[in-house]
Amino acid sequence: MEGDPTLQLRIFDLNCWAIRYLSKRRQERVQLIGDMLRQERFDLVLLQEVWSEQDYSNLKVKLGGCYPFSHYFRSGVIGSGLCVFSRFPILDTLLYQYSLNGYPYMLQHGDWFCGKSVGLVIIKISGIIFNVYVTHLHAEYCREKDAYLPHRLVQAWELAQFIRHTSKAADVVLLGGDLNMHPEDVGIRLLRGWTGLRDAFTEATRFEGCEDGCTLVPNNCFTVKTELMPFPLGIRIDYILYKAVSTFTVKCEELKTTMGTAPGTDIPFSDHEAVMATLHIQRQGQAAGANLSTAELTLADVVTEARTEVGVGLRAAQRQRYSTGRMAVLALLLLLLQAVAALGALAGLAAGQPFPKLSFSLLAFLAIGVLLLATSLHLFHTIEVKMLQGTEEQMRMVLWALQEHP
Amino acid sequence: MEGDPTLQLRIFDLNCWAIRYLSKRRQERVQLIGDMLRQERFDLVLLQEVWSEQDYSNLKVKLGGCYPFSHYFRSGVIGSGLCVFSRFPILDTLLYQYSLNGYPYMLQHGDWFCGKSVGLVIIKISGIIFNVYVTHLHAEYCREKDAYLPHRLVQAWELAQFIRHTSKAADVVLLGGDLNMHPEDVGIRLLRGWTGLRDAFTEATRFEGCEDGCTLVPNNCFTVKTELMPFPLGIRIDYILYKAVSTFTVKCEELKTTMGTAPGTDIPFSDHEAVMATLHIQRQGQAAGANLSTAELTLADVVTEARTEVGVGLRAAQRQRYSTGRMAVLALLLLLLQAVAALGALAGLAAGQPFPKLSFSLLAFLAIGVLLLATSLHLFHTIEVKMLQGTEEQMRMVLWALQEHP
Repeated sequence: MEGDPTLQLRIFDLNCWAIRYLSKRRQERVQLIGDMLRQERFDLVLLQEVWSEQDYSNLKVKLGGCYPFSHYFRSGVIGSGLCVFSRFPILDTLLYQYSLNGYPYMLQHGDWFCGKSVGLVIIKISGIIFNVYVTHLHAEYCREKDAYLPHRLVQAWELAQFIRHTSKAADVVLLGGDLNMHPEDVGIRLLRGWTGLRDAFTEATRFEGCEDGCTLVPNNCFTVKTELMPFPLGIRIDYILYKAVSTFTVKCEELKTTMGTAPGTDIPFSDHEAVMATLHIQRQGQAAGANLSTAELTLADVVTEARTEVGVGLRAAQRQRYSTGRMAVLALLLLLLQAVAALGALAGLAAGQPFPKLSFSLLAFLAIGVLLLATSLHLFHTIEVKMLQGTEEQMRMVLWALQEHP
Repeated sequence: MEGDPTLQLRIFDLNCWAIRYLSKRRQERVQLIGDMLRQERFDLVLLQEVWSEQDYSNLKVKLGGCYPFSHYFRSGVIGSGLCVFSRFPILDTLLYQYSLNGYPYMLQHGDWFCGKSVGLVIIKISGIIFNVYVTHLHAEYCREKDAYLPHRLVQAWELAQFIRHTSKAADVVLLGGDLNMHPEDVGIRLLRGWTGLRDAFTEATRFEGCEDGCTLVPNNCFTVKTELMPFPLGIRIDYILYKAVSTFTVKCEELKTTMGTAPGTDIPFSDHEAVMATLHIQRQGQAAGANLSTAELTLADVVTEARTEVGVGLRAAQRQRYSTGRMAVLALLLLLLQAVAALGALAGLAAGQPFPKLSFSLLAFLAIGVLLLATSLHLFHTIEVKMLQGTEEQMRMVLWALQEHP
């Protein structure tokens, strides 16, 4: 078996920042991305933030010659933004939508409307089964006070669980995407620890690109400079991760990121830099076994850390559920009071007209509005509490299994 | 290998109809169910419609002695209602929430609020890996004009896909639940065809229980008799399905349903009858291979039939998306007109007071209400269209694979 030829696989990953009406010079950039992909002829292309299906269709037409197989994942109001182009036939697909993804009322952040998900495509190359995952996790808008950390952790956990449960027949697992986490963050340590995935950047024999492998850099003319102030080099939040499941080995020979503007233009492809990995896959005599006991001890620490953060989020969600519930009850009481007053006036109990009609009806409408809004929020935070509790309990189960019954 | 001892597994499945405040004599029935489960000592218990976590906790306390392992699946506002009790350790769990599940404004049906899902628990018994799925699909409220058929078909499809993708390392797959489909319905043929699952009722060597294996019968005092009018014997919508994935065979030795009232009382356990299967699992020399080409031809027919129904649902959803969008635009126009009129009055363009203030503000509030409602519905139907399109495309891919590239 040792003599089996090595399979070389070139993978491209990019958050395309192609939001209709909002992203700058979107159509021009999507065209540039298409041109480059056609020219470079990767084996696998994993894209995020392709929010417009029209952009996907245009890319599909343009790339049909060199990437005859593709899939667009639909979810949420706007879509998942995820799509895959492949030189090799896509045998099957599956989409998993994360149970938590920010708040519908945070309109300025908008993540909730995107139906953030993980997409799976199954590809067979030279008899080797590849489970390829593409995802985009909730953005981090303020690192110091990251209100979305519990949601992103739930997503990282669900991503890890989804990969573990669906990749059991795979020979090689690949994950590409914008994880919105720095390499040392608890979420990425959880994901890597719980799935065994390895980071192409740290494993690569050769690297070429932005310093430290950063994918959101101040030099890019589309990035918001103030957000990157604490990170003069930029941040690394886009990843290609991989592992061999059965009797295969995977090595990352080369990792690259894009830098500066697209060739022959004055703009970069996106506000993110693309990540490009060249992997070498070879069959080997027997499955590689890691030093499990040490790994499991570290994993237990990471799961504990993640569980603490989820617990913090749970208590915040419980507080919000309580306060929105109280608000709904108060609005209902006000409405009932008004109804009693109106009935009293109608029955002639009060002498004359006690309230001006206009203010009275405005107040009633206000109360109805508050009641509806507070009830919706209460229901939403009830779901949030349930999902955070569910994740915390799953993590507790895993910790129990790791610590007591290895 | 042929000499391996046979593993006998006794499985219990019941839709418990335990909706807080709504289900009749709920607490009494949950107690009866607990008593019976403790007495009968099944190996695996799959329950649906346990909507109250308190009921689950009570059952857990009561059953702790004979079913030391259990899991409750959380999702949606109310919960998934799904839980599992097991004599054997639960190694891992995963929940998948269906992307479509009725309409939030159909309050009288309420399915939308339940976050209908499929739960997976992984159990190892005598070295055999069991992937056990429990689920509850959208109810059928009117068989002649079933508005929820496309949603239930999407759910059946997602259920089949979820089982296929997550069961690749399993030796035996079990599915129990209230599928809300009659045995000959397209959804169940799709599910069975696409996963290879077999129906314990049709495969059972011995059967004992309600005629034709019905699980919703007119004799049950909690069922709505008018709904069962066209079916004098009742209907069979609760199932235990199974298959052996690798080198195992599974045989259903016995299938039973509950009948009549619980022992020593005047009420049945639920409005559904429970399904109880005794399975014999044995290791065999080599994996059993079905006659694939015939099976695939039938499967292609079933997928085509399901795809047609999903297409009907898609067109209905598109019409609703259009009409709610038009309603939102009209409400916005009315609001703008009012704003212009009000500004005109303020600027003194109109002589005197053109409209009575009260009617004017009531109309504005009405327009705002309609705008908000129509916009929400438009967003909802946009999601519905996307998910139906996604399913239709997945089915198209499968058909292409089945017909062109077997």
